[in-house]
Amino acid sequence: METLPGVAPPEQQNTYFYIGQHETKRTVPVTTELAEQAQDAGYDMMTRPITSPGFQARVLSSVDAYYESVSASSDANAVPYPLIAPLTPEDTNLVPDDTMLSTMICCTSPWIDLASPDPVIAHVSRQVFNHEVAYAAFCGVNNIMIQGPNLEASSVVSQYARAIGHSLEVGPYINLQILLPMQPTERKAAQDGLSLAGRARDSFKTLQSVATDALWSWDTWDLIRSTCKYHPRLTVALEIPQKLPSSAIQSRWFSEPLRTLMIPESTFVHNAKGFPVLNKPIQALLTRYMRLKTVPWIILSNVGPIPGQDHPGMPVNLPSRSISPELPTPAQSQSKRKQQQQQKPKDLTPYLSYMRHLQRTQPPRPIIDRFAAGYQDFLQSPLQPLTDNLESITYEVFEKDPIKYEWYERAVAAALKDLHQKLQRPIVVAVVGAGRGPLVTRCLKASASTGIPVQQWAVEKNPNAYVLLQRRNATDPLWNKRVTVVKTDMRAWKGPLLSADPATPAKVDILVSELLGSFADNELSPECLDGVQHVLHPEHGISVPTSYTAHFTPIAHPKIYAELLGRGDADKDKWELPYVTMLHQYDDLCISAATGTPDIQTAWEFTHPLPSAILQQSALRRGGSVQAGGSGMVGGDGWNEHNARFCHLRFTASSRGVCHGLGGYFETVLYTPEDKSKKAIELSINPNTMEEKSKDMISWFPIFFPLKTPLTIPTASEIEVSMWRQTDDRKVWYEWQVEVFVSVNGVRQRVATSELHSSIKNGCLM
Amino acid sequence: METLPGVAPPEQQNTYFYIGQHETKRTVPVTTELAEQAQDAGYDMMTRPITSPGFQARVLSSVDAYYESVSASSDANAVPYPLIAPLTPEDTNLVPDDTMLSTMICCTSPWIDLASPDPVIAHVSRQVFNHEVAYAAFCGVNNIMIQGPNLEASSVVSQYARAIGHSLEVGPYINLQILLPMQPTERKAAQDGLSLAGRARDSFKTLQSVATDALWSWDTWDLIRSTCKYHPRLTVALEIPQKLPSSAIQSRWFSEPLRTLMIPESTFVHNAKGFPVLNKPIQALLTRYMRLKTVPWIILSNVGPIPGQDHPGMPVNLPSRSISPELPTPAQSQSKRKQQQQQKPKDLTPYLSYMRHLQRTQPPRPIIDRFAAGYQDFLQSPLQPLTDNLESITYEVFEKDPIKYEWYERAVAAALKDLHQKLQRPIVVAVVGAGRGPLVTRCLKASASTGIPVQQWAVEKNPNAYVLLQRRNATDPLWNKRVTVVKTDMRAWKGPLLSADPATPAKVDILVSELLGSFADNELSPECLDGVQHVLHPEHGISVPTSYTAHFTPIAHPKIYAELLGRGDADKDKWELPYVTMLHQYDDLCISAATGTPDIQTAWEFTHPLPSAILQQSALRRGGSVQAGGSGMVGGDGWNEHNARFCHLRFTASSRGVCHGLGGYFETVLYTPEDKSKKAIELSINPNTMEEKSKDMISWFPIFFPLKTPLTIPTASEIEVSMWRQTDDRKVWYEWQVEVFVSVNGVRQRVATSELHSSIKNGCLM
Repeated sequence: METLPGVAPPEQQNTYFYIGQHETKRTVPVTTELAEQAQDAGYDMMTRPITSPGFQARVLSSVDAYYESVSASSDANAVPYPLIAPLTPEDTNLVPDDTMLSTMICCTSPWIDLASPDPVIAHVSRQVFNHEVAYAAFCGVNNIMIQGPNLEASSVVSQYARAIGHSLEVGPYINLQILLPMQPTERKAAQDGLSLAGRARDSFKTLQSVATDALWSWDTWDLIRSTCKYHPRLTVALEIPQKLPSSAIQSRWFSEPLRTLMIPESTFVHNAKGFPVLNKPIQALLTRYMRLKTVPWIILSNVGPIPGQDHPGMPVNLPSRSISPELPTPAQSQSKRKQQQQQKPKDLTPYLSYMRHLQRTQPPRPIIDRFAAGYQDFLQSPLQPLTDNLESITYEVFEKDPIKYEWYERAVAAALKDLHQKLQRPIVVAVVGAGRGPLVTRCLKASASTGIPVQQWAVEKNPNAYVLLQRRNATDPLWNKRVTVVKTDMRAWKGPLLSADPATPAKVDILVSELLGSFADNELSPECLDGVQHVLHPEHGISVPTSYTAHFTPIAHPKIYAELLGRGDADKDKWELPYVTMLHQYDDLCISAATGTPDIQTAWEFTHPLPSAILQQSALRRGGSVQAGGSGMVGGDGWNEHNARFCHLRFTASSRGVCHGLGGYFETVLYTPEDKSKKAIELSINPNTMEEKSKDMISWFPIFFPLKTPLTIPTASEIEVSMWRQTDDRKVWYEWQVEVFVSVNGVRQRVATSELHSSIKNGCLM
Repeated sequence: METLPGVAPPEQQNTYFYIGQHETKRTVPVTTELAEQAQDAGYDMMTRPITSPGFQARVLSSVDAYYESVSASSDANAVPYPLIAPLTPEDTNLVPDDTMLSTMICCTSPWIDLASPDPVIAHVSRQVFNHEVAYAAFCGVNNIMIQGPNLEASSVVSQYARAIGHSLEVGPYINLQILLPMQPTERKAAQDGLSLAGRARDSFKTLQSVATDALWSWDTWDLIRSTCKYHPRLTVALEIPQKLPSSAIQSRWFSEPLRTLMIPESTFVHNAKGFPVLNKPIQALLTRYMRLKTVPWIILSNVGPIPGQDHPGMPVNLPSRSISPELPTPAQSQSKRKQQQQQKPKDLTPYLSYMRHLQRTQPPRPIIDRFAAGYQDFLQSPLQPLTDNLESITYEVFEKDPIKYEWYERAVAAALKDLHQKLQRPIVVAVVGAGRGPLVTRCLKASASTGIPVQQWAVEKNPNAYVLLQRRNATDPLWNKRVTVVKTDMRAWKGPLLSADPATPAKVDILVSELLGSFADNELSPECLDGVQHVLHPEHGISVPTSYTAHFTPIAHPKIYAELLGRGDADKDKWELPYVTMLHQYDDLCISAATGTPDIQTAWEFTHPLPSAILQQSALRRGGSVQAGGSGMVGGDGWNEHNARFCHLRFTASSRGVCHGLGGYFETVLYTPEDKSKKAIELSINPNTMEEKSKDMISWFPIFFPLKTPLTIPTASEIEVSMWRQTDDRKVWYEWQVEVFVSVNGVRQRVATSELHSSIKNGCLM
């Protein structure tokens, strides 16, 4: 069953960019007046330090005094660690102020080092940090930005992570953003004489010596958020460099909870006219990141003072001629209207103006994005159309697909031609699971376009849809009372009665159905079509679709993992079922080096109609009769076992990461014309083939198989997935297990194994 | 507080060996008569196949018929997979029979291949296996032995594991043993024409080509039991080879749930007289394994028929002269008495006789083992002696330690000598937390032996123990009314009143306490001794103990993990506290290559008395008064922060495995004599130093910090542990987190991270 949300697509609208101003060393105190000036200049927000330079000086002098005492003492252990007293009015000018705080991101002191290997520095840093967070929470601050840990190899990140986790519990509304670079860079500046890191004793700096690489910044984040158990109020503030890291790293960060994109002045280049602009790769990155469901904020860093602010420093290379920036006027931002009214002689915020320009000129979103707006990564349980009766609106939404029914019509037309050539008589066509009749219409159109007469049947179990089908047959000019509508579960249908004798029903030539789910067989298409196959002509009968395949690939999806984790323990089976979801904020873990596309492998295939021997064995087992060979009773179990499947697939991780589950897709061959020069008619939601096979089809979202415990995936590791389609006499369910292997010194070792997950309690009932 | 169980040690008794007989190809049907003959011959049990050779032939012919049909068919998919009908009376002679089944281990067919990469073979194997397990369960069989998966690289072990997990649910009483070799061996025999594995199509055999090593057999077990979620009814039947694998692999299996040790005839050697014997390494292995709390059964395989059985084959090289085996006559085995009554002309069961000989000649167990019998791996919560009052029996058990109080006496004597030399006056000695007075007695003995007079004080908060102390002072000839007994929490004690003026209490010269827990500081010794330090003489006061350290190392402990897992989700905090336990069935993951001993590292240290500056800062913070420097209020929080600790330790895994948690230990220096030629007097439960420092001390069990999710530890990986001793103003607790790193292609990668565990909800109250 298709998986469209039951809503019409929203009007296309450019995403508004929330843009803030940041200075790494503010020389002007942040006052209500300054904040208003920032808004007047067109900024939506600004950052501010929680404490003053005076506080920094006080802390540093405490540390220096400690070291002096230690030098003077015969026993270093006899000197108590520096004790940082709580904040005084001189230490901070932050006060509770509802109006302005909502547009503020408050920054904890960047000169501390919570991850210091030196216990004295770590101790002092923790005190400073705790004082700042506690005071900010008291003042009602909602957003706090925290300098990420020093990415030196000597850092003890677990200490940093523990401190962050602790501070998340200080207040129920506080949101923490960890400021991290996309990949490690030289950050010697943090080691200067004004920082605590610079005061760590040398003996501690060499504690660890390990090689790190471009993913080290992400690794650090991964440890922090894992330690904090994927806390929903913990996010990333990502610093965008002028030269972007590899696309793998760009994608990795895309999948993380990006609250803020920090763009420093140094990331901009200047165009021929001297205006600051961003290079093309960064523009593309922004377009991608700004389409996240939770749209990141943009913070411009060190791009010059807020106009009106008494500030000595201005970035150089500013264009000297006056410009009239075309500012947007979204409803959200009053300040911009003000600005537009007074033509300024010179653009005092050229970086901001450029970002507004980017905002206005964003490319339109692809059709599926627009259609699924708001549904990205929203988790739905797969439909159970066999046990539930759908509502009319659900059918209506499904019928809007611009591609799917068109392709069905082509497939039926091709099948009609092939059969008619052989049979030279009207063709018996039956749509099973006809719903409100869209496929019936397509069959009749195919008949009309090919000029091949059909005897058209429509079978539907839903008594409500059955009413509509009869009405349509009576009133629709195309149907024109030519359709025989039967109300029955297709598995109980005796077949079309073309002769007068009810004891000898005729057979169907073409059986048309739309029973597929996001993972192909997950809504029991195989079982339904097996159940109706007895009405299909045994020699030449055609099923549309003729086959379908399920596909999957390991992915990182922190957002869905966090969502499921957050549901608490009451929802016991939450890890034990697949979810239908518009996968969006995820990262593929296995990218093929050859193609650059994700390695999405085929789990298994179903074809229709089944060979008769298979159906015969199934019938024998269902009846519990004596086995053909006469060697014993078969018993009543296992009649559906021919629809069980197993696969064991091996993937290679293209870069290290965390596996939160499997992204699943399907493909189906509706019909393959006998004329080999003609292409098969196919539908696909597999990202690797959907463009080619059924571009712009919007009916199905992917499926996601979660893992209860995320698995760490080392670089160059192999991921082996075992997946089962299990069945007993009453239902169908899936089981899945993931193992991770890595080669160390030539020996292949398993480094992680997931639980064996099973949706048996949420199986699809037959 | 010490951790002895509250029971007297049981009488030393040799462990009885339960020994069974197994034949890989039984030619004689297992009947009640045969089982009785086995018992008469001295066997405690025997194995039997569930199905007959006829069943095997039927299954194999089904498979052959399938392949013939496939060859004859144009479409392989049109041929249904072979269907194995349920068992007939010809297929099995097993029937429900209470008497004999209790001495039977039933074997599923070893010729199937549940892990076959060929789906046909896997499908048939699964049917055979399910039929056999279901029928055995129906008959009331409790113990089933299952051939482990083919250790070929092409095996799909996840399929095997899934089948085992499924069969555990067939019956609530069924116990499954997986038969595995200690390490992979050539097993071509299984691939012969009579096995299903031998029938797998070649195209599937080359699916996987990976290098495996000596741990591959254990790896396989690890995947099976993980998939089955450490099921309590799933155990190992371990095949012991003549040439044992490395000690690392021996230790690994020791830590697993060994239900059976399978010793084939080929494992024996023959001594000069031609008798079958086991080599010394195997004897040592048996001694070790047979001391497990759940004593493994021993199954002798292919060592000749059961005497009286009509059986053509006998192992060669049997001694020809008649012997009179000295069989044991334990109460458990009636059969042996029968045998002894009739002197047989020839030993028909020389292998069994040898095993009985081994049983009788087992070396005695070490003292701690005897003392802790029954308490191995039993989980206790640490005592809370500060908030609970102990009972007399608890004190009594603790007082029985043969080493601990002797060492205390030596330490006090040495301290008395050192102080008396300086002071030349009677020494004021106070035992704080005196309990029933054992340390008081030792102080008085030290005074007597050194001839140095003491003024002896005893401080105790427990009102019940206080009664006993007073009585003892009045009646014990050594105490002789010389002890001043004070009932108070030591932290509230004003100090000894030696003068008549209550306003000027004197100071204590030697403060003796026994407040240590298994992890040194885990029962608040630091906080208690800080609290009483005000009574200690500030210049020369001595604390016995003077220092203590906490130590830990990563270990595998499947048994404790399974035990905690089995407690269910209701016990929410079960992973969030350390347990005191007599660690026994575990495996050290980090063995030092240099010493061959586990790498047990030091977490942190506490020393007493504290430098005065530290206590002063603490007092300032407790009072919330203005800080000494005058820079602000300190507030009421953090007065105990000087007793917080953090460590970040790095271990190197010596072989791959699974980390279930940390084994924790302590060491303490009771006193270091000023005469440098004399050794410090120390106690230790650290396995690396306990022999040297306090051999035969039995007062403390180790401590275990669990991990909620076991971490896979690759070979040559590094394990980094962060551990915190946290404190607020009311309690003390621990936090611990484990990370695993491995170097792949020169880049160090984190491959696993545990949760950050915290015992804050089970913290020790001050």
